[in-house]
Amino acid sequence: MNSKINIPIALKNITNHFSPKIIGEVNDVYIKIVKILGEKVPWHNHKNEDELFYVIKGSLLFEIEGKDSFIMNKGDLFTVRKGINHRVSSDKECEIMLIENKTTAHTGDVKSEITKSIAHQILE
Amino acid sequence: MNSKINIPIALKNITNHFSPKIIGEVNDVYIKIVKILGEKVPWHNHKNEDELFYVIKGSLLFEIEGKDSFIMNKGDLFTVRKGINHRVSSDKECEIMLIENKTTAHTGDVKSEITKSIAHQILE
Repeated sequence: MNSKINIPIALKNITNHFSPKIIGEVNDVYIKIVKILGEKVPWHNHKNEDELFYVIKGSLLFEIEGKDSFIMNKGDLFTVRKGINHRVSSDKECEIMLIENKTTAHTGDVKSEITKSIAHQILE
Repeated sequence: MNSKINIPIALKNITNHFSPKIIGEVNDVYIKIVKILGEKVPWHNHKNEDELFYVIKGSLLFEIEGKDSFIMNKGDLFTVRKGINHRVSSDKECEIMLIENKTTAHTGDVKSEITKSIAHQILE
């Protein structure tokens, strides 16, 4: 992972939804890309870690427990703080970048049908 | 910094070149945007920290000491490893995102005319 990577090209090669792929790393952080279509992300939180969302294409519905939900559009960036229950969904395909600690589990402590280990997030 | 921010709009409000602005944070990391035009970035390194570059608009010439230089285009992402001497430039305006530790000085230990403190990197 010491050479440059083109994110739009990497996204073209991703066919599965809800399956984050690591496309970069910097210090203790992974940069991931993921396609969202539908509502399969379970409510979850990351006890000790913030998680950053950046929308590359499309729109994302962001829900936070006890707060008004909101839409993130292309170019929008938002950080959900540690311990905050959240979930994201989209009724049309949405492409996002995630910035999170290498230790962060993408569905928190919740195991669901979309949960992937870090080994399964390596870009082929 | 707990609400969403739109990066293209934030970029429109930045008029100075070589002046990184913090537009997000996640754990120990700042997300910054900066416009590059010309060759004012001095050769420098970050002794203990990697630094990630992501091109939002335009093209960036990336030079690494002792290696072939290369061009980064829109959508390209590259991490320069800690301790590696590097500099970036562009003959046309280029818009980039930086992902780096909160402790990272943007021109390393080098003080140049473009060097900004973290206080001067806060988005107004």
